[in-house]
Amino acid sequence: MNSLTNILLPEPTLRRLPWYLAYVDILRHKGVKHVSSTRISKALSVDASQIAKDLSFLGVKGRTRIGYEVNDLSRALGDFLGFSHQHRAYVIGCGSLGNALIRDSGLSNYGLQIVAGFDISPNVTGRDDLGVPIRDINAIYEEMKHNPAEIAILTVPPEVAQESADIAVGAGIKAIWNFTPYRVKVAEGVVMANTSIYSHLALIFTRLNSLQ
Amino acid sequence: MNSLTNILLPEPTLRRLPWYLAYVDILRHKGVKHVSSTRISKALSVDASQIAKDLSFLGVKGRTRIGYEVNDLSRALGDFLGFSHQHRAYVIGCGSLGNALIRDSGLSNYGLQIVAGFDISPNVTGRDDLGVPIRDINAIYEEMKHNPAEIAILTVPPEVAQESADIAVGAGIKAIWNFTPYRVKVAEGVVMANTSIYSHLALIFTRLNSLQ
Repeated sequence: MNSLTNILLPEPTLRRLPWYLAYVDILRHKGVKHVSSTRISKALSVDASQIAKDLSFLGVKGRTRIGYEVNDLSRALGDFLGFSHQHRAYVIGCGSLGNALIRDSGLSNYGLQIVAGFDISPNVTGRDDLGVPIRDINAIYEEMKHNPAEIAILTVPPEVAQESADIAVGAGIKAIWNFTPYRVKVAEGVVMANTSIYSHLALIFTRLNSLQ
Repeated sequence: MNSLTNILLPEPTLRRLPWYLAYVDILRHKGVKHVSSTRISKALSVDASQIAKDLSFLGVKGRTRIGYEVNDLSRALGDFLGFSHQHRAYVIGCGSLGNALIRDSGLSNYGLQIVAGFDISPNVTGRDDLGVPIRDINAIYEEMKHNPAEIAILTVPPEVAQESADIAVGAGIKAIWNFTPYRVKVAEGVVMANTSIYSHLALIFTRLNSLQ
C-alpha cells in the first residue's frame, strides 16, 4: 500500500478523481498513450490547474508538452481509489434495493465484493439464489468469524437504519454505506458514506417541475 | 401543483428535506401527532433554526409549544419533493446496475416509475422478464410516442455515456439521472443529477485505508 493513501484527501478531490479515471480509461481503451491536463479539462469541464493539483496528491506528474502517460495514470488512480483490490462487504436489508445491489456484479469491478446479506424476514434469509448467503441479522457476529467484512451496505427501512448500523458496528464493521434516507450516526473512527438517492430524485422532480 | 414548487430551492435544503421526511414518517408510523424542530434537530443533528428555515420554504409553520403536525408535515414534504405522484422514467443501459434498478420496486414508493429499458445488446433487448419492455436504443424515439418518459436513468458504460444522454435528450427526455462515473454534459434546460456511487466507494476505501 502506497503511503500516500494515508493522506486524507478533501472530499471534492475524491469526488473528481473517479471522473478522471473514467475518462482516462476511455482513452486507454482507444489506445491513446498520453493526455494533457488541458485535454482532460475540456472533456470534463474541470479547470486544468485543479486537475494538475488533484493528480499531484497521487504523486503523478505530467511532462511538459507530453502530458500524463495514460496507462500509468489509470493504474495510479485505480490503486489510489482502492478499485484495484477487493473490499469485503455485507448488505444489511435484502429488500428490493439490497437485493438489486447483491445482483449488481459490476460493483466488483470497482473493488467491492459483497460476501453476505442479512435480513430479519424468514422469507429472505436462507435464500441461496443470489450467490451469497442471506442470513438472519443476529447471525452477523458468527458470520464475522469465518466470512468477515469491513463494510456494511445499509438498505433497510429508515425506521431500523440506526439500530442496524449499531449492530453492524458492534459486530466489527468499520464502514457504513448508507442508502437509507435516515441520517445514521456512528462513533468516531467508523467511516460513514451516504448515497442519497432520494435526495437526487427530489432534485430531479423539483427541477423538472420548475421547468413547466 | 403548489406554486411554491416553482421556487428553485438551494441544493443543501433539497438534500435535507428527504431526511426530515424519513424521520417524520417514522414518528407518523408510531402514532406521534406533533413534533418540534428541536426534536427533529436532536434526531438528525441539524440545527433547529435551519430546520425551521428549510420548512418555511414549503409554507409549513410550526405552532409555539406544539410544533409541527406530523401528518401535515409528512404530506407537505412528500408533495413538495415530488414523491407523491409517479414520474415516468427510462433506464438506458440494462447491464447489471440498470437491471438492478429496474428490479428495485422500492423506487416507485418515491415517485419513480420505470416504464422501459434500452440497450444495444441483442442479448438484452426483447427480454420481458423484468416487467418492463427492453428495447434497442434506436427504438427510443418510437417508444416516446406511445410509452413516454421524462427522465432517463443512465447506467451505460462510461465510454458511451455522453452519446447515450444525447440520444435520450434528442428523443425528448427532460432529465438525466447519471449513475456513470463520466461527467455527462447536457444543454441548458435539461435537468442533470449525478449519483456518484464510485466516488462514494472511493471515499469509503480511502478513509478505511487511513484508519489502518
